[in-house]
Amino acid sequence: MTTDRSIKVLAFDAYGTLFDVYSVTSLCEELFPGQGNILAAMWRAKQLQYSLLRDMMNAYKDFWQITEDGLVYCANSLKVELTPGKRRRLMDAYLTLAAFPDVRPGLEALRETGVRLAVLSNGHPKMLAAAARSAGISHLLERVISVDEIKTFKPSPKVYNLIGSRLGVERHDIGFVSSNSWDIHGAGAAGLTAFWIQRSALEPSEELGYPAAAVVRAITDLPALVGL
Amino acid sequence: MTTDRSIKVLAFDAYGTLFDVYSVTSLCEELFPGQGNILAAMWRAKQLQYSLLRDMMNAYKDFWQITEDGLVYCANSLKVELTPGKRRRLMDAYLTLAAFPDVRPGLEALRETGVRLAVLSNGHPKMLAAAARSAGISHLLERVISVDEIKTFKPSPKVYNLIGSRLGVERHDIGFVSSNSWDIHGAGAAGLTAFWIQRSALEPSEELGYPAAAVVRAITDLPALVGL
Repeated sequence: MTTDRSIKVLAFDAYGTLFDVYSVTSLCEELFPGQGNILAAMWRAKQLQYSLLRDMMNAYKDFWQITEDGLVYCANSLKVELTPGKRRRLMDAYLTLAAFPDVRPGLEALRETGVRLAVLSNGHPKMLAAAARSAGISHLLERVISVDEIKTFKPSPKVYNLIGSRLGVERHDIGFVSSNSWDIHGAGAAGLTAFWIQRSALEPSEELGYPAAAVVRAITDLPALVGL
Repeated sequence: MTTDRSIKVLAFDAYGTLFDVYSVTSLCEELFPGQGNILAAMWRAKQLQYSLLRDMMNAYKDFWQITEDGLVYCANSLKVELTPGKRRRLMDAYLTLAAFPDVRPGLEALRETGVRLAVLSNGHPKMLAAAARSAGISHLLERVISVDEIKTFKPSPKVYNLIGSRLGVERHDIGFVSSNSWDIHGAGAAGLTAFWIQRSALEPSEELGYPAAAVVRAITDLPALVGL
């Protein structure tokens, strides 16, 4: 396992890394019995796909709108009726996603090592602020950076470059943490040291040419790797 | 249904529109019994995803390599052993995909109306030439344009702009045809008149802001819409 004790800033992806996007599954199941799992999985995949497609089309919309557009598509695809009330409840669930159990203890332990902590996410600022507050981790984060500042989504290198410019650190001082393998490859392509939180042992790395510097199973494994 | 009799050039997407990418399913099933359908569907989705991710990462690789990388990922994800022999057979299958039954009669009828026909595809030139030859439609196409000329994938507007520049026609003279709804929205965002071949009645339009000018079920429905 690679260790790197020169890391001064650790920037975390939000959705899937800190916040469990599948925590909306139970609400999906309550609203659409028998289709909760498929809707939650399809919605997450479509949300990501729309961020990539809109970026390439030069037709940026913020992540809140993309998330809602993705939900509409998935409901159409599954032939379920998305009433205005159901739509609002599902979207609101994105503001209060559960944090994974390793998040708070992991971030607290990292803070004790002296590493500066930030978030770098595709999410709209209002989504990120609400989720961080709901998860009780706002006070541990020095900065929450949203791609909305530059209207470009990950994995554009312009996005990963925001960490250095907003926190005033050099590329070699930055560690980037994500559970999304494609996000790891994107950060690697942008020259950052990337740590993959492999939340499922069954999930392989993407084949995109920039594998992680280190792979761990939980955020609580990180202090041993990057602590001063 | 919108009709448009000013169309001088019709450019077709290749994979999924002319060539049936799921025609590899039977080979997938032969090589990996019980997993043919899931492998074929996952491989196609991963191929598309890698084109988008690599474009945004500024890490272009041609579509042949992306297709192979996607296959490797899917085999890892499904925990099946992709021997060098199986890998070669599956990749070779991409060179001899079946054309949909409406392709040849549809293109022949369009040619009789005087419309100029072309292909605009993410595919590598060698893949496109092999598939067009295998399907017996090369002689109907004035030009086969590959994104490899500019190392950028759809749905970047730079790609759709190649039709006008390579065929010497204005944007308003161009019709773009695809069975992939995201590709329709991409062409629309680039200012082209887009015709969606909705090969499955169950498939909804993507929610990307640029729906098709017209929706048909087969290429043989197009001459009535664009014929002179």
